[in-house]
Amino acid sequence: MTRADGRSDDELRPVRITRGFQKHPAGSVLVEFGDTKVLCAASVTEGVPRWRKGSGLGWLTAEYAMLPSATNTRSDRESVKGRIGGRTHEISRLIGRSLRACIDLKALGENTIALDCDVLQADGGTRTAAITGAYVALVDAVTWLGERNKLADPKPISCQVAAVSVGVVDGRVRLDLPYEEDSRAEVDTNVVATDTGTLIEVQGTGEGATFTRSTLDAMLDSALAGIAQLTRIQTEALES
Amino acid sequence: MTRADGRSDDELRPVRITRGFQKHPAGSVLVEFGDTKVLCAASVTEGVPRWRKGSGLGWLTAEYAMLPSATNTRSDRESVKGRIGGRTHEISRLIGRSLRACIDLKALGENTIALDCDVLQADGGTRTAAITGAYVALVDAVTWLGERNKLADPKPISCQVAAVSVGVVDGRVRLDLPYEEDSRAEVDTNVVATDTGTLIEVQGTGEGATFTRSTLDAMLDSALAGIAQLTRIQTEALES
Amino acid sequence: MTRADGRSDDELRPVRITRGFQKHPAGSVLVEFGDTKVLCAASVTEGVPRWRKGSGLGWLTAEYAMLPSATNTRSDRESVKGRIGGRTHEISRLIGRSLRACIDLKALGENTIALDCDVLQADGGTRTAAITGAYVALVDAVTWLGERNKLADPKPISCQVAAVSVGVVDGRVRLDLPYEEDSRAEVDTNVVATDTGTLIEVQGTGEGATFTRSTLDAMLDSALAGIAQLTRIQTEALES
Amino acid sequence: MTRADGRSDDELRPVRITRGFQKHPAGSVLVEFGDTKVLCAASVTEGVPRWRKGSGLGWLTAEYAMLPSATNTRSDRESVKGRIGGRTHEISRLIGRSLRACIDLKALGENTIALDCDVLQADGGTRTAAITGAYVALVDAVTWLGERNKLADPKPISCQVAAVSVGVVDGRVRLDLPYEEDSRAEVDTNVVATDTGTLIEVQGTGEGATFTRSTLDAMLDSALAGIAQLTRIQTEALES
Amino acid sequence: MTRADGRSDDELRPVRITRGFQKHPAGSVLVEFGDTKVLCAASVTEGVPRWRKGSGLGWLTAEYAMLPSATNTRSDRESVKGRIGGRTHEISRLIGRSLRACIDLKALGENTIALDCDVLQADGGTRTAAITGAYVALVDAVTWLGERNKLADPKPISCQVAAVSVGVVDGRVRLDLPYEEDSRAEVDTNVVATDTGTLIEVQGTGEGATFTRSTLDAMLDSALAGIAQLTRIQTEALES
Amino acid sequence: MTRADGRSDDELRPVRITRGFQKHPAGSVLVEFGDTKVLCAASVTEGVPRWRKGSGLGWLTAEYAMLPSATNTRSDRESVKGRIGGRTHEISRLIGRSLRACIDLKALGENTIALDCDVLQADGGTRTAAITGAYVALVDAVTWLGERNKLADPKPISCQVAAVSVGVVDGRVRLDLPYEEDSRAEVDTNVVATDTGTLIEVQGTGEGATFTRSTLDAMLDSALAGIAQLTRIQTEALES
Repeated sequence: MTRADGRSDDELRPVRITRGFQKHPAGSVLVEFGDTKVLCAASVTEGVPRWRKGSGLGWLTAEYAMLPSATNTRSDRESVKGRIGGRTHEISRLIGRSLRACIDLKALGENTIALDCDVLQADGGTRTAAITGAYVALVDAVTWLGERNKLADPKPISCQVAAVSVGVVDGRVRLDLPYEEDSRAEVDTNVVATDTGTLIEVQGTGEGATFTRSTLDAMLDSALAGIAQLTRIQTEALES
Repeated sequence: MTRADGRSDDELRPVRITRGFQKHPAGSVLVEFGDTKVLCAASVTEGVPRWRKGSGLGWLTAEYAMLPSATNTRSDRESVKGRIGGRTHEISRLIGRSLRACIDLKALGENTIALDCDVLQADGGTRTAAITGAYVALVDAVTWLGERNKLADPKPISCQVAAVSVGVVDGRVRLDLPYEEDSRAEVDTNVVATDTGTLIEVQGTGEGATFTRSTLDAMLDSALAGIAQLTRIQTEALES
Repeated sequence: MTRADGRSDDELRPVRITRGFQKHPAGSVLVEFGDTKVLCAASVTEGVPRWRKGSGLGWLTAEYAMLPSATNTRSDRESVKGRIGGRTHEISRLIGRSLRACIDLKALGENTIALDCDVLQADGGTRTAAITGAYVALVDAVTWLGERNKLADPKPISCQVAAVSVGVVDGRVRLDLPYEEDSRAEVDTNVVATDTGTLIEVQGTGEGATFTRSTLDAMLDSALAGIAQLTRIQTEALES
Repeated sequence: MTRADGRSDDELRPVRITRGFQKHPAGSVLVEFGDTKVLCAASVTEGVPRWRKGSGLGWLTAEYAMLPSATNTRSDRESVKGRIGGRTHEISRLIGRSLRACIDLKALGENTIALDCDVLQADGGTRTAAITGAYVALVDAVTWLGERNKLADPKPISCQVAAVSVGVVDGRVRLDLPYEEDSRAEVDTNVVATDTGTLIEVQGTGEGATFTRSTLDAMLDSALAGIAQLTRIQTEALES
Repeated sequence: MTRADGRSDDELRPVRITRGFQKHPAGSVLVEFGDTKVLCAASVTEGVPRWRKGSGLGWLTAEYAMLPSATNTRSDRESVKGRIGGRTHEISRLIGRSLRACIDLKALGENTIALDCDVLQADGGTRTAAITGAYVALVDAVTWLGERNKLADPKPISCQVAAVSVGVVDGRVRLDLPYEEDSRAEVDTNVVATDTGTLIEVQGTGEGATFTRSTLDAMLDSALAGIAQLTRIQTEALES
Repeated sequence: MTRADGRSDDELRPVRITRGFQKHPAGSVLVEFGDTKVLCAASVTEGVPRWRKGSGLGWLTAEYAMLPSATNTRSDRESVKGRIGGRTHEISRLIGRSLRACIDLKALGENTIALDCDVLQADGGTRTAAITGAYVALVDAVTWLGERNKLADPKPISCQVAAVSVGVVDGRVRLDLPYEEDSRAEVDTNVVATDTGTLIEVQGTGEGATFTRSTLDAMLDSALAGIAQLTRIQTEALES
């Protein structure tokens, strides 16, 4: 029983990371997991939100969004609806938390980094691609700050962060689900982890189904192997 | 190193489930995990949302909210702010997904059950208390439907659902965190599971920190033991 | 012609006032007028709104809301709708005005007291129960401020405030209408008054009908007698 | 102790009612109580709101608003703020209730009349001027419906409606308060009544003060005498 | 082929400018282009928006709105809908830009002038009437500032501003279109210009059609001739 | 006096049109005017908005937006602010009107085409690039409909549409302004025209300045020459 796109169960889709996609933000990365394409921009602004002023700490936020044209059938624009949906909120918060796990906000000084992850094309795994790309944009933004002597400490980033989805489809644990698999998965798990294999976030969900601990273990094995590959691809992109 | 409230690391807070708290909804449960008190109401309405009409399937939604006076310092009212925050959205969606895992929507017929989980007093673990209480309210609402011959199938509920938080505090894995522990936990995990120990949802988060797989395993062990106790308490409440 | 619940026309429903219902706010009262149950919390925050800063005066606001599950048929959540309805606005303003009539804002110092009146169960008269309960919560909050030496003057409260509804049902003037009577009343009046029988607010309404001055007089007689009883019940609750 | 504008305590300001102020609505009235000027339009639309369809009953709603330039200092536009304030909500509801008291919605057939009361210039008493003017616009709209044979019954209006404010200023009961008096009144009462002296709505408020029943009686005497004059002015306007 | 109202193609509707329509704002003008009636108020407030503080420059903004009863069929109130429509936004911005072209914001000192243009009755050309009336209200507001010695320079206004619509209807270029012509025009152009015939804004639109440059030229000829008349009418109104 | 980027006054920036940028929409074009990059997607949905049902006519709408990271300094996300700004509204409406000028909505049948123009990178002229790109995406969407036999008439597009900006900078009329010129232009004009040189929309604006008719003529000459080139580039892109 093979996958529609010919991959083996534990195989990532082709991953591409293009740095410097936009000219204005300090970091700008187009990340592709197969047909999923997310533009991750890291913009630096001086100062921090009001509730944080005078603390000596920096801040990092993230906002996730999808272009209306990114999906199979056109989705309504949240700005036109006048409110952000629950899914958007949830993913924005996940990206922010995940990247804050690897950065020393004290070292940033009182600067804010905003990570904007805008999905240009969606084919499953947009949140994990976003986290993986946002890490690279963040590194570029930190370099930009360092070059301008705006860091309180020269090494604010303590670990490398990447993410991947894994699920149970047709009774098999499969890595990096495209939309076609994701939409009929019995269990769907997103894992965020570091280059050393420690975990940052695990979100396993059985919508309309339950799953055993051994399935969870198998999913984690697969995800961590995938993340190890993703961190190598990030490193290559940052060295090029 | 003992906990501030004298509990051992793997001990739940005192749990109380009071059925029939309100007179109007088909199910109404006040659930208490220590000082955390959540009112869980299951309201039945005939019909389903427009996008589901004619499908023969029922629907189940959940909305979570906090009274402004529930927290340590008064929180602003989301209705006054005119928008729901990301945390509220996230928890509402979690409760809905968790309870949908145990119900056969076809058996419900074209009826909708709305689960309203309103936190009267918050002391950590409000979302897990909400899920645990909502299950009991849901059972009462299903009974109510059955008594009125409105079920397409007499047994729409396929498993029992409960939830508990677990985290790493002071370097130790601890169960059912009160606010005082939750606010300084290095890792915070919420687990939703069934009475047979299968998983519905696992959300493990290291805000500003990472954690190992063995820590995750220890947290899951503790959570599943806690959930086994919670399902027994639910059963007692439903039998009384 | 007797009332459905067996009361005489000028009889209040059983009234219960439970202090200390929540642990966080300075004052927290559950007030019950029969099956109507309102949770009234008085939260103290240091400082006043921007437009009042430097005036030396304190501030008191009120917000009224209903749980979706409080009513006969589930009502939509105003936070989800993204706007507060006219009825909610109107009652919040009424509660605020009524309680400000009894408090010397100068004596409060530059502190703000927020009165949150959340209806847990509605069966008519929620606004009058809210005012009656909020008064008791306010007294507890003022005591709390006094104990912390935060009052500019030790006696900021100048009179006792309670409220009751009265209406014409089946051609008879009746006190403290439950939903069943309220929904078919020809005239509906809410009276807020003090323990000495002076008036704070009178709102008499004939929706789809008119009424004579002698009817208004009879309603005021009944309401003021009811309020005299309510202030005694408040006093007992505060002394216990 | 005379009033700033030379009136006696029980004297109305000069009242002017101009019909046919706008060409589009079925009824359009500019009403002036001294310097208070309110444009009251009654627009007819076929059909009723969804929840009323098929009932055979008509509907009447009202919306009150102020131009930003109507007040002493420019007020913010509610459309720009994106939400309607509590005061606006409250007055809109009051106007709607008051006018519904005099109309037989069955006689209207399934038509809707929208009463828009827009304050062009504010100098106290805008809500009472609005009600007084809206009555005249409503009569014109009903005539318009009658001329087009759209009424289920030829006489849908059962009584005449007018309103006036009355308050205690400088210790004296005074009728029809301009802003200068209203802003420092100890008690402020709005009375809506019919041409036969029966009451539709009484709203007496002591912001930061209380008042006795005898004061309420004196205010009602004064208001009802004023309303008797207002209904004569309405009649003259409708006969011209 | 004559126009429905008997005018020749290059003839304005009767124009009336009434100053001092309201008592509160520094400038208040009712402008009428035939049956189109717009109330233009210029309110002065000390200070400027936050982003402009300390610049020494004043500010001028404009807000355009329509009463619900102004149009042929009643339009919904934007405050009730909770958002401003695109057309309203567009016209508000146009009015602001047009009037800023004629004022030296430095000469204003750090004061803000808000131009509120509220359409009381709409019959085509509301935006051009609004600009024409707003200019007169602005002059009055500047005089008001001068009388109070609040201007940094005594002559802040550098040119006179007026506007008119012109379009192609039934194949002919026609000036100052009423609704009946506007709604079926093939091309619709709004021109804002000064008393010396220089242009401030040209907006020519072919909705569902295109137009040649020679048509544009003919429209500009007609519009500029109309604006020359309008500036004379403004001057007369300001001298009276 | 040469331009910063070395162009002559009447020279366009390098223009690139990439078709098929996204896989989901029926038409998807990345258009680049120098560093300005806009993604234009044309999505087809069956059916038309409610107010148009049963008319036999199709519909075409447009929505314009900017990524937060597209601009020099990060701009706030309109979905997060909960409302669309005036500029966004204005440009969305302009794009829709411009493209509707070239399409026969009857020929579309009861289908809707949504044009989403999302700015990935902004460097002046985003609205004119958007219109120019949207035309190409629209042609692709119409072809898509034709291939599926969903057109009521095989040739719904009657003319070719392109747009360009032109302005007065440093006293010279210049074509296709980048941000650096646009931000200090004395006059700024956007022209939408067809391949035969007829006009669809002319918007000339002097913010804080006025301009003569001869300047307008010179700007139109330059713009129409530029549009002739743009329509050739569109044709090449469509033929490739």
